[in-house]
Amino acid sequence: MTQPANELTAVDALAQISAGRLTAAELVRACLDRVAAREALVHAFAWIDGEHALAEARLRDRTRDRGPLHGLPVGVKDIIDTHDMPTAYGSPIHAGHRPAADAACVALARAAGAVMLGKTVTTEFALRHPGATANPRNLLHTPGGSSSGSAAAVADFMVPVALGTQTGGSIIRPASYCGVVGYKPSYNTINPTGVKPLAGSFDTVGVFARCVDDCALVVGVLAGDERGGPLQAARPSRVGLCRTHAWSHAEASTIRAVETTARQLVQAGVTVADVELPAEFEGFLDAQSDVLLFEAARVFAFERTQRADLLAPSSRSELERGFAIPRDRYLDAQALIARCRTLFAAAIAPYDLLLSASAPGEAPRGLDNTGEAMFNRLCSGLRVPCLTLPAFTGPTGMPVGVQVIGAMDDDVRLLRAAKWIAGVIGD
Amino acid sequence: MTQPANELTAVDALAQISAGRLTAAELVRACLDRVAAREALVHAFAWIDGEHALAEARLRDRTRDRGPLHGLPVGVKDIIDTHDMPTAYGSPIHAGHRPAADAACVALARAAGAVMLGKTVTTEFALRHPGATANPRNLLHTPGGSSSGSAAAVADFMVPVALGTQTGGSIIRPASYCGVVGYKPSYNTINPTGVKPLAGSFDTVGVFARCVDDCALVVGVLAGDERGGPLQAARPSRVGLCRTHAWSHAEASTIRAVETTARQLVQAGVTVADVELPAEFEGFLDAQSDVLLFEAARVFAFERTQRADLLAPSSRSELERGFAIPRDRYLDAQALIARCRTLFAAAIAPYDLLLSASAPGEAPRGLDNTGEAMFNRLCSGLRVPCLTLPAFTGPTGMPVGVQVIGAMDDDVRLLRAAKWIAGVIGD
Repeated sequence: MTQPANELTAVDALAQISAGRLTAAELVRACLDRVAAREALVHAFAWIDGEHALAEARLRDRTRDRGPLHGLPVGVKDIIDTHDMPTAYGSPIHAGHRPAADAACVALARAAGAVMLGKTVTTEFALRHPGATANPRNLLHTPGGSSSGSAAAVADFMVPVALGTQTGGSIIRPASYCGVVGYKPSYNTINPTGVKPLAGSFDTVGVFARCVDDCALVVGVLAGDERGGPLQAARPSRVGLCRTHAWSHAEASTIRAVETTARQLVQAGVTVADVELPAEFEGFLDAQSDVLLFEAARVFAFERTQRADLLAPSSRSELERGFAIPRDRYLDAQALIARCRTLFAAAIAPYDLLLSASAPGEAPRGLDNTGEAMFNRLCSGLRVPCLTLPAFTGPTGMPVGVQVIGAMDDDVRLLRAAKWIAGVIGD
Repeated sequence: MTQPANELTAVDALAQISAGRLTAAELVRACLDRVAAREALVHAFAWIDGEHALAEARLRDRTRDRGPLHGLPVGVKDIIDTHDMPTAYGSPIHAGHRPAADAACVALARAAGAVMLGKTVTTEFALRHPGATANPRNLLHTPGGSSSGSAAAVADFMVPVALGTQTGGSIIRPASYCGVVGYKPSYNTINPTGVKPLAGSFDTVGVFARCVDDCALVVGVLAGDERGGPLQAARPSRVGLCRTHAWSHAEASTIRAVETTARQLVQAGVTVADVELPAEFEGFLDAQSDVLLFEAARVFAFERTQRADLLAPSSRSELERGFAIPRDRYLDAQALIARCRTLFAAAIAPYDLLLSASAPGEAPRGLDNTGEAMFNRLCSGLRVPCLTLPAFTGPTGMPVGVQVIGAMDDDVRLLRAAKWIAGVIGD
């Protein structure tokens, strides 16, 4: 084995563990060594205790009972509860908080044999206020957010897989910025219990990894499903090119990534056709924002009414804005989104998947702003599955992803096509 | 004032506090005196500390800033987080657990001036395994569940209002058994953050009170709405009598309560017509059960995989059953329920509300079983608002409620009609 263990994909690492060529402890040790070398620059972790993770790994190495993630190190976004590690939700209000239970996704990952390596940095409550994480591809640039540490840790080979969440654009955007695969499954694929909510109508648990196979494997386990066997790549027949109503925000690098992908698909024999979303979608992003802020203002009622002095100013003002939205406007926004879900199902029906942008362009410079989510909030609101695939770079050499989008609960078809597409695209 | 303060409705108590004829501390003291006299028999509370509640009440009495629930004592079901009181979810796994934050509903109630009196008994994780609570109308009978202590405390004049939750039948059934008003608002009226989930697709926070006005007032505040002004009673024009597919389980006392109500409405000038639900509803209760158990098995992944020895046998077997349900069956069940929601909207459209049964009959004898929820799971699955109104008694003199059901998010119309109906029905 020439490749360092921490650079293996999850599928490869698990195969080596299963074949007796690698132990869980060796794998965790390799990840911890990388963390030790890079963490002072990247700041991917909110909490990590190497001895604790190694002890877990050694326990795995001693057990005969081997689940599908046996020995796999996993980074856990710090809005996801862990009973044995502090969980602070990116907020000083909850510094040092010890949850009573693992979140459902963490418990299912552990039951499958995974080792929780540590807690990754999140923006405050998954709102806008950034944490300390830098983009490992260029430390002067944001990693994106809110799942900042999860994206950065996977991109920097600190861990093969990390858990994140998306309510607006918190998986796809940071994955695109950091140059990894991000997968937001269909809403309600992974049970959200024990994940601090932001807006329950959209909150979705998903994963970061360095290949599509790893995403499929981990999400299958976290869903509490045996999805059965390795993922088979499948060439899609028809792909819809969907620029969405946010296209005017696409920078040259993103336009090039999406259009190059479309051309490469055509060259590989795929039929690609433009898909225009109906006029109702013009109000979609505003509606999605209204629902998100209305719900967030109630989700954080305790923090807003009893701990407001410890909230970042941007969090406080977002929550106050949400509390000022009248319920009628909220219900109207929900109704518009529900209509758009039906319209979207019809729009995507002739296609295996839609191709779109993952982010406006490269990760912006500076750590004070995690970038814009206008290419992500559509899928968050529609609840449909999506992945970002890293294959392109922008003017400064930073990664630029492309997004593939599936129909609701049609994740397996999307994953199979995404695996195939990942093999044919790139600069 | 001849009526003891603890027997006042919330609206009356708040009016007296507002007029300076009653202090929050006096009201809380009266409630605590009742608890002291009766708790050894009723066992409504999982945790209560009189000094803590009195200190909160005195704080309210000293503040000028007066919200709409200023000084109101509230009982809180023990699956609802409180940052200053232990929250054990009815399980020894979490005995003594101190949450980091108030649930959204608790924070909003406090921000409106309410005083949390104590934590009320729940079945284990709101599943079937009962707590110690007895029915205050007859201590040998169950109070129903899972919100057992909330129903009993309100019925026994320990507190004017209590918070509960319903996923199957956990508000309407215990309210009917204990002879109080129970109100399950439309799904997502009250944000569920900080409430231990059971099945997120149905989990709904609601209230117990001794009149419809109190329910409307408290839910308006917990929703984060200013619903504006006192509730006006309104005679409905048309009421649908809906026996549902569970009618064969209705005992004579329930049949009599529903049919007497229908007759009394007709005598008062209301048009009452039979409503039969379409054939698709035959599979509804099975589908609702599949969704509930599938989700519960994932919600309690930590408890099921790491603390199974501390689960009641009935909880463990329900969770194992849920984990064995394949995702395809779950998605099929969700699809059937979604179709039924559309069909129900059409079925109720010609009516102001539907009239139905709250429970099979009186509360069963014995504390080892909280009764059956087949008359409640319809509204839980449909997510529509419903109330049970206490006005009848069964063969042993125990209460028997009738249920009124509204269209989704049409709660105000339902509440206004329910207030009017409460004034015209009874044995």
